[in-house]
Amino acid sequence: MREEIVDAALAQFHEKGFNAAAVKDITDRAGVPKGSFYNHFPSKEALAIVALERYGEQRRLTDLADPGVPPVERIRKHFEFLRDDVLDHDITRGCLLGNFGTEIVDHSDPIRTAVHEGLEYWSGLLAGAIAEGQKAGEIREDLPADPAARYLLSAWEGTLIQARADKSQAAFEVFFALTFDSLLKT
Amino acid sequence: MREEIVDAALAQFHEKGFNAAAVKDITDRAGVPKGSFYNHFPSKEALAIVALERYGEQRRLTDLADPGVPPVERIRKHFEFLRDDVLDHDITRGCLLGNFGTEIVDHSDPIRTAVHEGLEYWSGLLAGAIAEGQKAGEIREDLPADPAARYLLSAWEGTLIQARADKSQAAFEVFFALTFDSLLKT
Repeated sequence: MREEIVDAALAQFHEKGFNAAAVKDITDRAGVPKGSFYNHFPSKEALAIVALERYGEQRRLTDLADPGVPPVERIRKHFEFLRDDVLDHDITRGCLLGNFGTEIVDHSDPIRTAVHEGLEYWSGLLAGAIAEGQKAGEIREDLPADPAARYLLSAWEGTLIQARADKSQAAFEVFFALTFDSLLKT
Repeated sequence: MREEIVDAALAQFHEKGFNAAAVKDITDRAGVPKGSFYNHFPSKEALAIVALERYGEQRRLTDLADPGVPPVERIRKHFEFLRDDVLDHDITRGCLLGNFGTEIVDHSDPIRTAVHEGLEYWSGLLAGAIAEGQKAGEIREDLPADPAARYLLSAWEGTLIQARADKSQAAFEVFFALTFDSLLKT
C-alpha cells in the first residue's frame, strides 16, 4: 500500500505541483482509503521527499557514468531521454526537481534539502561525464567540469520552463544546439 | 484600490506561489475588504496576469537597449540587478516568470500565454543586446543572437532554482563565469 501511495503521489505532484496535490487526490489515485495515509507518512511534506527520491531513480542518471558509451553521446542521450518524457506528455510536467525548486523550497527546509541533494547528485554525475569527455578530447578543456555541469543543469531547467510556456519544442532545439555546438564544443 | 490589490498580489504570488496565495491573503495584505476583490478582477487568474505585467515593468528590461552602456556591460548589469534582488530577499522568491512557468502554465492557458509573452519580450531585448555586442566585437560572432538569448534566459532561470535550493550564491558565480568567460566570449 505504501508503494502505491508513493507512485500516486509522484504522478500527482508531477502533474499538479505540491500545493495543488491534495492528500485525498493522492489516496484516491492510489486506490487506498484516505485514513490509511498517516499510517505510512507523517505528512505530505515527508511523502514529497520520498516521491522525489523515486523520481530521481526513474531518471536513469547512472547512464551518465556508463563506460560503454562515449561521453558526449552519453550526455546527449541523457537529455534526449528527459526531453522525450516531456514530449510524451504534451510538453507538460517538466522536472520535479525544478518544480519543487520554484514552488516549495522557500517554504519547506526538508524539501529544499532534498532538491539540493538531488541536484548535487545529478550535477556530480554530469560533471564526471564532462571530465571524461575532456580527457577523450571530445569536450573543450578550458571549461572546469563541475561549473559546466551546473550551468548545463540550469540551462536544462530553464529550457523546460520555456518549452512549457511556449508549448513548443523550439526551446529543446536551442538547448541541444547551443550545448553541443557551442558551450561544450572543442 | 485596484493598484493596491495588484501590488499586494504581486508580493504574495512572488513569495508564496499561485496556489498558496489565497485571495483573502491578498486583500488582507492590500488592506481592502475581500468582497471588493471581484469588483476589480474576475478571478485570481486574471489578477495573476496583471501582477505578472507589473513584475515585468519592475525588471528594468529596457536597460538592455540603453545605447549609453556598452552591450556586454549592459547584459552583465542586467543580471546583477536581478541577482541582487534575490540576494536582498535571502535567496528566496526567484523569478515570477519561472515560478508561474513551473507551477501554473500546464493548468491555465491565459497564464501560460502571459508567461510565454513575457519570456519572448525579455529574450528579444537580450538578443538585441547580444547582436550589438557582436557588432562591437565584444561577443563571439558564431553564436546566433536569438538562440543565445534564449539559452541565456534558460541558464538564468535554472540558476535561480539552484541558488534557492542550495541557499547559496554559488550558482550565481557559476552563471556569471560561464556566461561571460565561456558562452559569449570572443
